[in-house]
Amino acid sequence: MRDQIVIKSGYDQFPAWERAFADAGIQAIRWEDRDDHLDAIRYALVWKPAPGDLAALPSLEIVFSIGAGVDHLVGDDLVPAGLPVVRNVDPGLTAGMVEHVLYHVIRFHRRMADYEADQRAGRWKPRLQTPASSHTAGIMGLGELGGACARALAGIGFRVAGWSRRPRVAEGVDCFHGRDGLAEFLSRSETLVCLLPLTAETCGVICRETLALLPAGACFINVGRGPLVVDGDLLAALDSGHLRGAALDVFHREPLPPDHPYWRHPRVTITPHVASITQPATSAPHIIANIRRHQAGEQLTHLADLALGY
Amino acid sequence: MRDQIVIKSGYDQFPAWERAFADAGIQAIRWEDRDDHLDAIRYALVWKPAPGDLAALPSLEIVFSIGAGVDHLVGDDLVPAGLPVVRNVDPGLTAGMVEHVLYHVIRFHRRMADYEADQRAGRWKPRLQTPASSHTAGIMGLGELGGACARALAGIGFRVAGWSRRPRVAEGVDCFHGRDGLAEFLSRSETLVCLLPLTAETCGVICRETLALLPAGACFINVGRGPLVVDGDLLAALDSGHLRGAALDVFHREPLPPDHPYWRHPRVTITPHVASITQPATSAPHIIANIRRHQAGEQLTHLADLALGY
Repeated sequence: MRDQIVIKSGYDQFPAWERAFADAGIQAIRWEDRDDHLDAIRYALVWKPAPGDLAALPSLEIVFSIGAGVDHLVGDDLVPAGLPVVRNVDPGLTAGMVEHVLYHVIRFHRRMADYEADQRAGRWKPRLQTPASSHTAGIMGLGELGGACARALAGIGFRVAGWSRRPRVAEGVDCFHGRDGLAEFLSRSETLVCLLPLTAETCGVICRETLALLPAGACFINVGRGPLVVDGDLLAALDSGHLRGAALDVFHREPLPPDHPYWRHPRVTITPHVASITQPATSAPHIIANIRRHQAGEQLTHLADLALGY
Repeated sequence: MRDQIVIKSGYDQFPAWERAFADAGIQAIRWEDRDDHLDAIRYALVWKPAPGDLAALPSLEIVFSIGAGVDHLVGDDLVPAGLPVVRNVDPGLTAGMVEHVLYHVIRFHRRMADYEADQRAGRWKPRLQTPASSHTAGIMGLGELGGACARALAGIGFRVAGWSRRPRVAEGVDCFHGRDGLAEFLSRSETLVCLLPLTAETCGVICRETLALLPAGACFINVGRGPLVVDGDLLAALDSGHLRGAALDVFHREPLPPDHPYWRHPRVTITPHVASITQPATSAPHIIANIRRHQAGEQLTHLADLALGY
């Protein structure tokens, strides 16, 4: 009997996962077919399981997260006690995030939205431009994704500051950490990019107090999780003009409810949680390698600590 | 008497030029003050001089172009016979062009305009995304600017093809050249970036025949010069859907006339010749170095050949 991995994804990527696992002799099972394979399913690769979903798989040995965060696995009855949870490591996911963040930082820095408004008005209005070296992008969260974004931004000439919970060192990045480093970090961040994991500690970190510390006219990019932000405080900072713009990819409720003020706010750009999507071809090797380690009785890598939230 | 350089620019950057030259002991003169300095003005740094403008400077020894191209200096009575013309070399100009090209290639690759339309319609519609390695950006013109854009795009994972008049080698770029290499180059270019100089040979190079060679659904970015494109042919390719989009920064006539169909075309994004602007702080060192060479009786570098057009 081949090893079996059951997949619950937000996207219709099953054929790509199936190919990627087949090469390693692992059979992918569609979520809707799981009841026919209950004894053989040892591994689950999931995005947002419902309570009880995973407990109903009696032979499950490892839970792999499809998303970059594991916050979707924190809650009552989501992951049975004692099961290891492995974080996603995907060079393709990282590359997609770098594209999204570069795009929005350049868009703010070069005032592309103003040029779009000019086009709608039939207005030819060149503006002087400033070099990227005069613009500081502040990256909150210097993990796999944040570190890659910081390096890419520094690589095309932006000044880059970074903030993380614990001390980090990154070449070409002014690094700050902890409560004590937050104010200094925020005061430099002309475009703030939030890539923190969602934990009990980070929930609501983007609020009136922290937004007020950004320089006047700053911009905000949220590619972390919706609940990192206090929506009313962000809207107030946009309405007052203290913030010039926000590019939001993640929200408290997804899909974003139709009546949410973000949809029609002139300073808000919305994308539907697509800043980056896990790519089966580049994500599977890490999962397969961990399955091999498990079978050989070795320690798994990139284990998440659900109590910490990442 | 200090060396004097007179400046005719499209932007109000005089104070920055003045500072940059003052450090080298060279006095910058505003264009409108030139008649008070006719005997002392040995150098002119210009954008789009009018016929006769330069001939009216009796002590002129070198003409420096502010723009990346020298096409604005080709024409009757623009540059007095025998005067050397030096091209612009500005790391700041190159960096700005890289920002603009990265932005628009990512915008097309990631279908950001579709997400903007979704937001206007209040529609939450995630789309599967493909890796940059499955998208080929084709760079026409592999000089200072095109080469930098090719390297930056390859650096974030795009497949990059390049085309130039004469053979070139660039790491990570599939290089094509000459008439013979054009069809193969175009057939690969899912986003075509035009950075050619405007010469008698390149005028109208983007036309029905060349656009037809692009893959169906391709995108086009013009950051070279307007007359490289046959506007009617580009509009036809956009109307038919053969091209998915165009980001145009340069035009036959600038400002773009108010009644031009580009303004309101749903597949066209317009910027007003701001893809990149010469930065005095990073451009002046090259000019100063050439002035020093001239004074020492040495050969100037980066001389333009107005007969060739670059």
